[in-house]
Amino acid sequence: MHDYPPTPKCSTLSECLPLSQWNETGELGSEMAVNTMKQELKSKSSLADCSSRMRSIVSFYFCYLLCLCLGIACIVLVTTWNSKWRGGFAWDGSSLQFNWHPVLMVTGLVVLYGNGAVLYRVPLTWGQNKLPWKLLHAGVMLLALICSVLGLCAVFDFHNANKTQNLYSLHSWIGICTTALFTLQWVLGLAGFLLPCSPMSFRKLLKPAHVWMGGSILILSVVSCISGINEKLFFALKGTTNGTQPYANLPPEALVANSFGVLIVLFGLVILKILSNPHWQRQEASEDVSYSPLLQDDN
Amino acid sequence: MHDYPPTPKCSTLSECLPLSQWNETGELGSEMAVNTMKQELKSKSSLADCSSRMRSIVSFYFCYLLCLCLGIACIVLVTTWNSKWRGGFAWDGSSLQFNWHPVLMVTGLVVLYGNGAVLYRVPLTWGQNKLPWKLLHAGVMLLALICSVLGLCAVFDFHNANKTQNLYSLHSWIGICTTALFTLQWVLGLAGFLLPCSPMSFRKLLKPAHVWMGGSILILSVVSCISGINEKLFFALKGTTNGTQPYANLPPEALVANSFGVLIVLFGLVILKILSNPHWQRQEASEDVSYSPLLQDDN
Repeated sequence: MHDYPPTPKCSTLSECLPLSQWNETGELGSEMAVNTMKQELKSKSSLADCSSRMRSIVSFYFCYLLCLCLGIACIVLVTTWNSKWRGGFAWDGSSLQFNWHPVLMVTGLVVLYGNGAVLYRVPLTWGQNKLPWKLLHAGVMLLALICSVLGLCAVFDFHNANKTQNLYSLHSWIGICTTALFTLQWVLGLAGFLLPCSPMSFRKLLKPAHVWMGGSILILSVVSCISGINEKLFFALKGTTNGTQPYANLPPEALVANSFGVLIVLFGLVILKILSNPHWQRQEASEDVSYSPLLQDDN
Repeated sequence: MHDYPPTPKCSTLSECLPLSQWNETGELGSEMAVNTMKQELKSKSSLADCSSRMRSIVSFYFCYLLCLCLGIACIVLVTTWNSKWRGGFAWDGSSLQFNWHPVLMVTGLVVLYGNGAVLYRVPLTWGQNKLPWKLLHAGVMLLALICSVLGLCAVFDFHNANKTQNLYSLHSWIGICTTALFTLQWVLGLAGFLLPCSPMSFRKLLKPAHVWMGGSILILSVVSCISGINEKLFFALKGTTNGTQPYANLPPEALVANSFGVLIVLFGLVILKILSNPHWQRQEASEDVSYSPLLQDDN
């Protein structure tokens, strides 16, 4: 009843077994020895699997910690830049109201958005009911959306108060498209993944589009931020009218704002790295759970 | 010798079989009928596989065609912008030399780079010897790199001739980092995947980093281009000194250049979509072939 040597299945196993286990006729001394070896191999293989999974989890948390630090650094730098060199904040149609624009856009469209996007990738959330994490994902994204809309209000109010044209620069075109897509993404996400009346076929169609659009919106956010910071520095650091040093001399403000831009790009790349790694994707219990809307399957 | 009903394996199959195939005792009339049904199911399944593969290939070529059209449109628009509204081209340290900068950077770092990146995804190249495609990939990327370096020379020469500071803006910081990373990527790619002396361990380590860095460089390129176009339009369309309409009035030049920026973003997103779709990845014959360097395994 041996289904090991001389069948091909056994020849693979034999490569892993020491020669001493084999008798002169090329057969194993006892079936028990084979079973012991099989168990040892299985245990070694599961040990290797476990070690590889641990490495994957550790490297995830390293990236996650990095994106948390980068996110905090971005918020600190944009606030410092606008409070120390741009005069601080107000909501009165002056340039102090404009200063809310970079702070709110970076906090909403970059930092909160990025952290909301990678929420399902945190291994701590795996194997648990998805609903609370789904609600947290939607909640963080809603907060990000509110920040972005307030950020847009800040710049529109400032432009209107100063009789400046709205939405003419490439930065503003990309920025407004990003916020519009983000709003659409949030509404479709709510309709598809949280409302109980959403049909399964719609959710199955929506899921890959939602994931891809999520990454694309982050790229658009980074593009908008970098073009906006660059534009603002050219506007602010003219070195003629307002007693500042010109941008070309790289005064401290320019160094801080440029470094802040570099950190935004790094943050975006780390988030996209986390999103693109298949080993860091949430292990769904079943396809049904993955697509279950609020109050239907999860609850 | 039936391994079909009443075993559990058969109960699944029976769901697909019409009731008329079963006799009163619940067993199949003949083993032949089962085999015919199995073949039919297998053929239906492979037909479904084939149809799904065809759909995947058709949607790939749709995206590929889209990125080819977007790439051509980008080159046409950047050339039109600089020849029609910015005075054309020269290599004499004047602003006409600067005009080569956007044309060469977009052609190299965006269009050629993007097309070179998705080369292995073209299904036409699958199942063939990888070496010619590897050489074409390296060749297109080298051409992209040469364009980018010439594009940098254009702007450095212009700045130096006009006693303007180099590398102070955020656009220039991101742009120079992008070109430096691209150069490093090309050199490491040559060393790892084309030189025969490269050790397998290095190549295995390099492959995922090369793929990830490839996507990141494209994102950085798009970020650099958008911030650069935005900056250039604010510099050029002041509406005071040079008889142009201000940018805020959205003259035809601004509309063309803004649209060109939007097309660059769309091009980048389509390329990243192609790169991220696992169904569009080259089907490697074996891991060895995938990592084989020039003149070692492929030749």
